[in-house]
Amino acid sequence: MTPEDLRSIRRFVQEHLSGGHAETDVLADKPLDVYDRFRELGFASWWLPSELGGRGFGMTDSVELVNELAYGDAGVAFTLFISVLGTSMVQLYGSDGLVHRFLRPMGTTGGFCATLGSEHNAGSELGKIETTLRQEGQELSLTGEKFFSTNTDFADFLVVIARGADSPDDYRAVVLPRKSPGIEIVKRWDMIGVRASHTYQVSLQDCRVSRSQLLEGSGLRLLEIGLNASRILIAATALGVARRIRDHCMTYAKSKSLRDATLIESPVFAGHMGQMEMQIDVMKSHCLRAARDYDEMMARPDASSAFFRQGTLKSAVTAKMFCGQTGWQIATVGSEMFGGLGYTNEMPIGKLLRDMRYVSVVEGGDDVLRDLVYHRYVIPVPRRT
Amino acid sequence: MTPEDLRSIRRFVQEHLSGGHAETDVLADKPLDVYDRFRELGFASWWLPSELGGRGFGMTDSVELVNELAYGDAGVAFTLFISVLGTSMVQLYGSDGLVHRFLRPMGTTGGFCATLGSEHNAGSELGKIETTLRQEGQELSLTGEKFFSTNTDFADFLVVIARGADSPDDYRAVVLPRKSPGIEIVKRWDMIGVRASHTYQVSLQDCRVSRSQLLEGSGLRLLEIGLNASRILIAATALGVARRIRDHCMTYAKSKSLRDATLIESPVFAGHMGQMEMQIDVMKSHCLRAARDYDEMMARPDASSAFFRQGTLKSAVTAKMFCGQTGWQIATVGSEMFGGLGYTNEMPIGKLLRDMRYVSVVEGGDDVLRDLVYHRYVIPVPRRT
Amino acid sequence: MTPEDLRSIRRFVQEHLSGGHAETDVLADKPLDVYDRFRELGFASWWLPSELGGRGFGMTDSVELVNELAYGDAGVAFTLFISVLGTSMVQLYGSDGLVHRFLRPMGTTGGFCATLGSEHNAGSELGKIETTLRQEGQELSLTGEKFFSTNTDFADFLVVIARGADSPDDYRAVVLPRKSPGIEIVKRWDMIGVRASHTYQVSLQDCRVSRSQLLEGSGLRLLEIGLNASRILIAATALGVARRIRDHCMTYAKSKSLRDATLIESPVFAGHMGQMEMQIDVMKSHCLRAARDYDEMMARPDASSAFFRQGTLKSAVTAKMFCGQTGWQIATVGSEMFGGLGYTNEMPIGKLLRDMRYVSVVEGGDDVLRDLVYHRYVIPVPRRT
Amino acid sequence: MTPEDLRSIRRFVQEHLSGGHAETDVLADKPLDVYDRFRELGFASWWLPSELGGRGFGMTDSVELVNELAYGDAGVAFTLFISVLGTSMVQLYGSDGLVHRFLRPMGTTGGFCATLGSEHNAGSELGKIETTLRQEGQELSLTGEKFFSTNTDFADFLVVIARGADSPDDYRAVVLPRKSPGIEIVKRWDMIGVRASHTYQVSLQDCRVSRSQLLEGSGLRLLEIGLNASRILIAATALGVARRIRDHCMTYAKSKSLRDATLIESPVFAGHMGQMEMQIDVMKSHCLRAARDYDEMMARPDASSAFFRQGTLKSAVTAKMFCGQTGWQIATVGSEMFGGLGYTNEMPIGKLLRDMRYVSVVEGGDDVLRDLVYHRYVIPVPRRT
Repeated sequence: MTPEDLRSIRRFVQEHLSGGHAETDVLADKPLDVYDRFRELGFASWWLPSELGGRGFGMTDSVELVNELAYGDAGVAFTLFISVLGTSMVQLYGSDGLVHRFLRPMGTTGGFCATLGSEHNAGSELGKIETTLRQEGQELSLTGEKFFSTNTDFADFLVVIARGADSPDDYRAVVLPRKSPGIEIVKRWDMIGVRASHTYQVSLQDCRVSRSQLLEGSGLRLLEIGLNASRILIAATALGVARRIRDHCMTYAKSKSLRDATLIESPVFAGHMGQMEMQIDVMKSHCLRAARDYDEMMARPDASSAFFRQGTLKSAVTAKMFCGQTGWQIATVGSEMFGGLGYTNEMPIGKLLRDMRYVSVVEGGDDVLRDLVYHRYVIPVPRRT
Repeated sequence: MTPEDLRSIRRFVQEHLSGGHAETDVLADKPLDVYDRFRELGFASWWLPSELGGRGFGMTDSVELVNELAYGDAGVAFTLFISVLGTSMVQLYGSDGLVHRFLRPMGTTGGFCATLGSEHNAGSELGKIETTLRQEGQELSLTGEKFFSTNTDFADFLVVIARGADSPDDYRAVVLPRKSPGIEIVKRWDMIGVRASHTYQVSLQDCRVSRSQLLEGSGLRLLEIGLNASRILIAATALGVARRIRDHCMTYAKSKSLRDATLIESPVFAGHMGQMEMQIDVMKSHCLRAARDYDEMMARPDASSAFFRQGTLKSAVTAKMFCGQTGWQIATVGSEMFGGLGYTNEMPIGKLLRDMRYVSVVEGGDDVLRDLVYHRYVIPVPRRT
Repeated sequence: MTPEDLRSIRRFVQEHLSGGHAETDVLADKPLDVYDRFRELGFASWWLPSELGGRGFGMTDSVELVNELAYGDAGVAFTLFISVLGTSMVQLYGSDGLVHRFLRPMGTTGGFCATLGSEHNAGSELGKIETTLRQEGQELSLTGEKFFSTNTDFADFLVVIARGADSPDDYRAVVLPRKSPGIEIVKRWDMIGVRASHTYQVSLQDCRVSRSQLLEGSGLRLLEIGLNASRILIAATALGVARRIRDHCMTYAKSKSLRDATLIESPVFAGHMGQMEMQIDVMKSHCLRAARDYDEMMARPDASSAFFRQGTLKSAVTAKMFCGQTGWQIATVGSEMFGGLGYTNEMPIGKLLRDMRYVSVVEGGDDVLRDLVYHRYVIPVPRRT
Repeated sequence: MTPEDLRSIRRFVQEHLSGGHAETDVLADKPLDVYDRFRELGFASWWLPSELGGRGFGMTDSVELVNELAYGDAGVAFTLFISVLGTSMVQLYGSDGLVHRFLRPMGTTGGFCATLGSEHNAGSELGKIETTLRQEGQELSLTGEKFFSTNTDFADFLVVIARGADSPDDYRAVVLPRKSPGIEIVKRWDMIGVRASHTYQVSLQDCRVSRSQLLEGSGLRLLEIGLNASRILIAATALGVARRIRDHCMTYAKSKSLRDATLIESPVFAGHMGQMEMQIDVMKSHCLRAARDYDEMMARPDASSAFFRQGTLKSAVTAKMFCGQTGWQIATVGSEMFGGLGYTNEMPIGKLLRDMRYVSVVEGGDDVLRDLVYHRYVIPVPRRT
């Protein structure tokens, strides 16, 4: 990402996402125009390699980019990057044919990909998914109910996690074009925040795909690997929202009178903001560290097998955990800096608070992730930091 | 309050406020029907003495009652009790004529009272209010802009804090009938929570009142005294919302599968809920302690002058501070107990989180109250706990 | 407790425990002289009924008294009140003969009682104790290794929890005179705080007692009941230490220059201290609420059986949890108020920090107590607060 | 630093600092033998360039090294690295002659340097120092009382911050050989932790130095610059201590029985440790980020003037703040993982808790640093993260 790219993104955010915060705080019927504007800017699917029509930005650049987008709106940022969860699986574990068929058009036209993992009874325990993959002649048939999946309705293709109808221990990931018969949007979720994004409950009824649309390897492992990218970028969302909160506090404090001065001169306010800045600084360090870990692994000639051995990347998980917890502290303090006005929707802080909450909830709550970190990275002595 | 009264209240909450949480989570054009139902139940203005048509409940009973109402809906609870802020000023510092004219009808018919204290530039610093009180012949004229006041539009009368037009150090509290000419509702605030309540920005233009409608004593001191009652009940709101959150978590956990059992059997979940229960237990102890302090002072024959000397009651402030902070911790943990569902409006937790936030924001943020506690109760050695 | 009693206690603390904090921060070979002075003051075993030579103070008075003592020194306070753990078991579940033989002398002469419950493998899980009680003709024989017990070496008698050698599910509590053969002090523990107290590892080898020295009922249940009293008073210790920390901060701040003023005028310092005062206020409310719950149960004619049905008193546990957690926050903040001096033993804060830590560690850590609260007071719906 | 160097350090820690924790938890009369052993290992003054006899390790390597040393003992680590505070000032702002005279011997023989900055009335406000620098013919004379300085007694030379006797706004830093007449050790501080280190109160009475021993530039600014190095390494100490705490918890949990298993299998324990590991991971990321910032600036050809313009490095301050706060959370949780044993000195946790406390107290408490961050890095918009 060049400095000029970064300036472009910032102008985009300034122009499209810095007005009334209420505009993106709605469950719009269809994706907001802002997604078209972003595509026109030329950054859609920025993480795809240039040979697939993308911009070839690594995770480090992606963190910066998402940081900027989320400063504007977390839901818009989430919509724009969450495709990476599925595309990274396809990129690493799909055949050349699949990559060519699905990723290249997406890189070129800026479409979306949705990942269908979790189910009603399989949220934190993905091993409990019940969506089945059944061999029907030369084809495969997918049937099941997927609980939460983002972007599905307007995605070009889906990556579905399922288990063998006849071999339930065999989890697989399958690429399914959105227009395939049998895909039904059951409902759109009314989320409490990141409301510019679209998350759906989806039903799959005998959706037919060719065997060639299977990705290689265990579907659960692949999902873990896809989550590395999205968790880092969810963490980066918290960073952007936190910076927005800080700046709102400062803008307000400049004009808010307090005693014979303004709030900005209050030592107590200074203490809150100094703490907040420290936390933002640390969030950034750790997001970038996780991004470097990711980029290093991705740069290896044996990236696919290296990631497969690794599964969940430690720093990707700890980044989401840390930024979710710390972002929430920042949002909490921030929401107390505006007096009664901060409890009205005239100020963006109520929305920012709701947006921030998603970081600790999506893609694994902290109880689940603490347990994961413990078993993967504390019990095995050499994997401790 | 008799046990039968308490059962009545619980049935009322069960019947009217335990259905879809979305129903009370709206900015309705006019007060919800539930307020009429509550009046019919016979508890409206329950805190007024029976000789004024109320139920004569003390603050201890009020804490229990608000705890129950807030379990149903914090905004409804707030609407129902916030009149006490103004009525306690009238009761303690109004002439017999004022009490008779304004409180008795309210006690009988169950109307509302609104207090107009804060202004745009006078939130935490009430000394900065600019609403003026000017002598015009035998009448007084009130002019100013009041920023946040709850229930105003449908209140029977208002208590307005103003300063002498010709004696700016002379703050006064004046009773103003709602139907007086010159009162204009500038707008209704779009609050992020407690949305069943109605808070307004109000303009007063040459509103005329008789001199007899002045309350006795400094208006700022009287406001402090009125806030004792409302702060204790705001704290009690947090208690009710916290109990609702706990019960929602438990209900969900009973049916949520986890590994080979249900969430309710998870030791980690048990730890969260054990901590939450401890916190609720402490919140209750402290709300009741503040209520007893209040009731003891109110029971004194010299209650008016005793309260006037006291001003802010220490435990009333610490109750609001503590319950706001602890309630927020509970809401935070609670919002992480439902997985992704907790981030949708299908679950009430998003609303409860927004409702809870008001406790730490209204009637003095914690930075303001910490400073108040320090100067009033730490610097003077004998007033330390 | 009369106001004069309270003044006596305060003078005692002022005279004996307000000098160099280092004096009580040592592992003295024998109990400090201060214990003799306290006995001479006439308050030893203040909680025993007057007919047994005590002062007949209830738990509410005890909270006030321990609050004052712990303001002086937490270890001294702990030494002086911890006998109540054993004496309350004897008082409620011992025969008249036992009460007469053991409690009356103690009430009269001001001796100590020690409770021998926990073992190396039975800390939080008391059901795992291995100390056995074996019938030997008309006598009983106790054999086992007890891990932590306070005051044992200089106690007049011990209350030992053991299980039947031939009936391992039969846990009992037995009164054992200190001078009985077979009691060996294995070692004194080098505690990190409350160093004026004496806690021992003790070995019992065939200690003979008459059958009449058995208390009635399950030993584990009796221990729960005894812990109600000690947990409330441990919580009260936190209150006293917290007040001491606050006052030290204020004393220091008065003379510490900061910019052109003193620290006491700093708004940031004010914020810390306002928060601390709020927390102390809440700690006190909850300690007193737990004390009232205890006193109410103790005042019942059927106190023994009522306590037996109840076992652990909810507010006693939540008081220890809350005061331990909150006291630690106060100690943490306090330890940062003195600059570099706060990191030296010239200031008492280092000792106060170490003393405070014991509240959350002894008689059940928070993980254990959260689990207890959950299973006893959250799962059973009617027992929720 | 080569992998072999790192292995050497680890062997050193294993051999000399992993035994009884009590050995280094004492105020020894003279520096422990371990300092001689470290010198023999060849790493003393590892941060000095090889041309001055050091190992030429940058800050990134230093963070790793201090992380390892502090895993053994924080006080030993502090003693070994704190010289960098003074040497970095000499290296950047001293004449070639000074560098040659003072740093080269130190690099070669492994001696110590002490910095004398703070005074009784000039802790967080260094501008209030009263030590004077007076011109006496060709010499300069230093007179004053310095409150806290580490290593002074056995240092080879001191860097003293003073102000002009005749030009009080002119703060300077002066190099003073330890053996100079007029230096008196007033006392050694009895610190509550890092007790293997030696911190002194020092009196300077007409200590004579040549004008050539002045460093170039404002003494206050130079001190800020020197603190960049020491603050990063203090933060790294927290990292080492935190890792030690984690490992102690895990070692204990492996053999501690709980129900029918061991503590290591407890989900609640897993939650605590997963959180702790996450925090350690973030601490490391941020320490290394601060180290890179430092190394980048140090690698510039204009390092001296670049650092002079920069003064306090943002990430150095935020690293100390963050690691102090987070390390304390880790120590707090850790101290509750061992049951009652954790409250005895048989376990190292009490010492580790005391050691950890220093991170948030030395070289600027958090209130001071929050204020610094606010004014330097939040108010100026472009310097925000």
